[in-house]
Amino acid sequence: MGTALLTDHYELTMLASALRDGSAHRECVFEVFARRLPKERRFGVVGGTGRVLDALVDFRFDADDLDFLRSAGAVDDETAAWLADYRFSGDIDGYPEGELYFPGSPVLTVRGTFAEAVLLETLALSILNHDSAIATAAARMVIAASDRPLIEMGSRRTHEEAAVASARAAYLAGFTATSNLEAGRRYGIPTTGTSAHAFTLLHDTEKAAFDGQLAALGVGTTMLVDTYDITAGIRTAIEVAGPELGAVRIDSGDLGVLAVQARQQLDSLGATGTRIVVSGDLDEYSIAALAVAPVDAYGAGTSVVTGSGAPTAGMVYKLVEVDGRPVAKRSENKASRGGRKTSVRRYRSTGTAVEEVISLSSPELGEHDRPLQVPLVRSGVRTAEAPNLLASRDHLEKALVTLPWEGLSLSAGDPALPVIFS
Amino acid sequence: MGTALLTDHYELTMLASALRDGSAHRECVFEVFARRLPKERRFGVVGGTGRVLDALVDFRFDADDLDFLRSAGAVDDETAAWLADYRFSGDIDGYPEGELYFPGSPVLTVRGTFAEAVLLETLALSILNHDSAIATAAARMVIAASDRPLIEMGSRRTHEEAAVASARAAYLAGFTATSNLEAGRRYGIPTTGTSAHAFTLLHDTEKAAFDGQLAALGVGTTMLVDTYDITAGIRTAIEVAGPELGAVRIDSGDLGVLAVQARQQLDSLGATGTRIVVSGDLDEYSIAALAVAPVDAYGAGTSVVTGSGAPTAGMVYKLVEVDGRPVAKRSENKASRGGRKTSVRRYRSTGTAVEEVISLSSPELGEHDRPLQVPLVRSGVRTAEAPNLLASRDHLEKALVTLPWEGLSLSAGDPALPVIFS
Repeated sequence: MGTALLTDHYELTMLASALRDGSAHRECVFEVFARRLPKERRFGVVGGTGRVLDALVDFRFDADDLDFLRSAGAVDDETAAWLADYRFSGDIDGYPEGELYFPGSPVLTVRGTFAEAVLLETLALSILNHDSAIATAAARMVIAASDRPLIEMGSRRTHEEAAVASARAAYLAGFTATSNLEAGRRYGIPTTGTSAHAFTLLHDTEKAAFDGQLAALGVGTTMLVDTYDITAGIRTAIEVAGPELGAVRIDSGDLGVLAVQARQQLDSLGATGTRIVVSGDLDEYSIAALAVAPVDAYGAGTSVVTGSGAPTAGMVYKLVEVDGRPVAKRSENKASRGGRKTSVRRYRSTGTAVEEVISLSSPELGEHDRPLQVPLVRSGVRTAEAPNLLASRDHLEKALVTLPWEGLSLSAGDPALPVIFS
Repeated sequence: MGTALLTDHYELTMLASALRDGSAHRECVFEVFARRLPKERRFGVVGGTGRVLDALVDFRFDADDLDFLRSAGAVDDETAAWLADYRFSGDIDGYPEGELYFPGSPVLTVRGTFAEAVLLETLALSILNHDSAIATAAARMVIAASDRPLIEMGSRRTHEEAAVASARAAYLAGFTATSNLEAGRRYGIPTTGTSAHAFTLLHDTEKAAFDGQLAALGVGTTMLVDTYDITAGIRTAIEVAGPELGAVRIDSGDLGVLAVQARQQLDSLGATGTRIVVSGDLDEYSIAALAVAPVDAYGAGTSVVTGSGAPTAGMVYKLVEVDGRPVAKRSENKASRGGRKTSVRRYRSTGTAVEEVISLSSPELGEHDRPLQVPLVRSGVRTAEAPNLLASRDHLEKALVTLPWEGLSLSAGDPALPVIFS
């Protein structure tokens, strides 16, 4: 399916108006940025850039699309004819996916004629706002989990396609696996899962269920032990599988207390290598609270796919330059800064980041300064520099290390880095 | 694209285990329900049922799907062979889309073998949880807006496909139109939109922008007047278009104050029929606060597509019956009620709803009782009773009228109707 109709009606009416009065062909620069970080978070994670570039390839108007647009009154015949040949032929620069961003960071810069560039607004924002919100929440959980693995299992709590994108964003942020099969196929993310309470309830006894699971999935599997009584469940699981059982999962109750009890019981049964996986409405705060519990892996669902209280990154797509001239709106509480921006992050010699400097000219780069924008599209073609998902995952892991220590705090506060407009 | 991989890995491993030990062919009943309403809301709106039925048609495993599932270790060869012929051949009953639901309401009931029915869990929940969350939030905005029209314009703040589903859910809830073009094409929802601030900034003057818009879109169009100065913007808009201008839109600032000023100014210019559309981070509360302002229509975005603080409905899909025997888990804080449930809503003779009664047997229906579940699928085939979007929209409008008056309150509180388990 094409992506061109995943767009707001007014992009097309603006195009129609601009084609008619000739302004459509002015050279424009649009920038994507967030005015603030949601919930006083310390950093944002750029997510979705790769998906924007994928979607750009399919941003074409076929005959069916054009018929619909005409029937909806969104375009006239002249505009429809122009759209039939639409290909984005401009340039896009941006923060690589997995980069940290702060209020005002020019996350994506789109250059092209007004006609070509305005049409990308809705789709680019949909992807970046969703994926960045999820990636940012997920990164906070990765920080909270420290070295313990995190499994994303929230598909059922969000739109079925958002679930796939959420699995991708969580993996970008450092999750180790997802339950979502389509994310495995589409993006090569490891998928995992063994059984739900329904599988235990299906059988006449818990033992029969574990027997069935063992026979099919082998001794390395994870058995869900909290359908009836956790102590009995663990005893049965080890009776059935022996002390080589891979893991048990606990999905309810006071997980910190239960994990300690489960560890003691498993050890007393000789199952010292059997891991403990916990799940059940975990977010970054409850994960952090489990740091002292003998937990080997976390399953997180709802809180990941809903951005843990911040389901959208609130980024906007603003026209900042027309034919080389800076433009800005002056709307109350929504004023914007005109002109195409360049951004640089400055570091101490130790590698710790100090500030982000955003300027209208190309700044001189000091020894410890790093430009943040990379070319993503040139003349409509994706560049070799556009990072892939694994590279972005690695990029984020390294970027988080550069933040001052308070930047990794889960509590609300100021952005971890000041943003200086020079 | 097929929908079968929009599924959690563990549905497939459970299937593999159950095929191997023979339990896969037991006759099962799964129920979808919400343990609670989010944020102490007074009611929930069932959204997405129609999309579940659409997705069911494409729930097939083709050769590529099966290759992936084998390579991911999710299924063995026997399971893959079984999946190749998968068709859901069971029955589905449920609350019609647009029906109100309360904690415990059996919103969807899926009957079939374990193998056939367990596979639908993730996809059914993804759709119902997303669409119900959006429809519920949107319905509260419709209540707040009273008779004034609401336009959904939040596509850019959510996943690009969730945006289409959100537009659909908002329309179900009573919104009059959406900005999302794909929602217009896919579901026949009216689409609307005229121009953004970028269109004004593109031009050398605001007047030039309005001239261009008028020439292309005609005098009935809506002009965005807050790019620079609202008073000047309105003056220019009427100069350009005359007092027959369709509408002005204000997207920033104190909308209540600005709407009063705009109305006075428009009237003084003779533009007494020019409508005032307001937008800009509106939610149900700010819409309610604008009830006394001279506003003719609202545009709502972020708050609609993010469920206004509750982005998921939190519904679960639970096995309640196996071969006619009720089953229930006893997990701490997540216990479930076994047995297939029937639900009835009782009304006063005046038409006001009194309570919802959920029972394990078929209850006797009194004169003012209404059964809530309708047959949606029989032997794998969608029934004629499965309502379409327009019928569901109408259903919800009528259902809201039956609530006791406090049920329409925007404040947090108990569910509008008690749910009695008998």
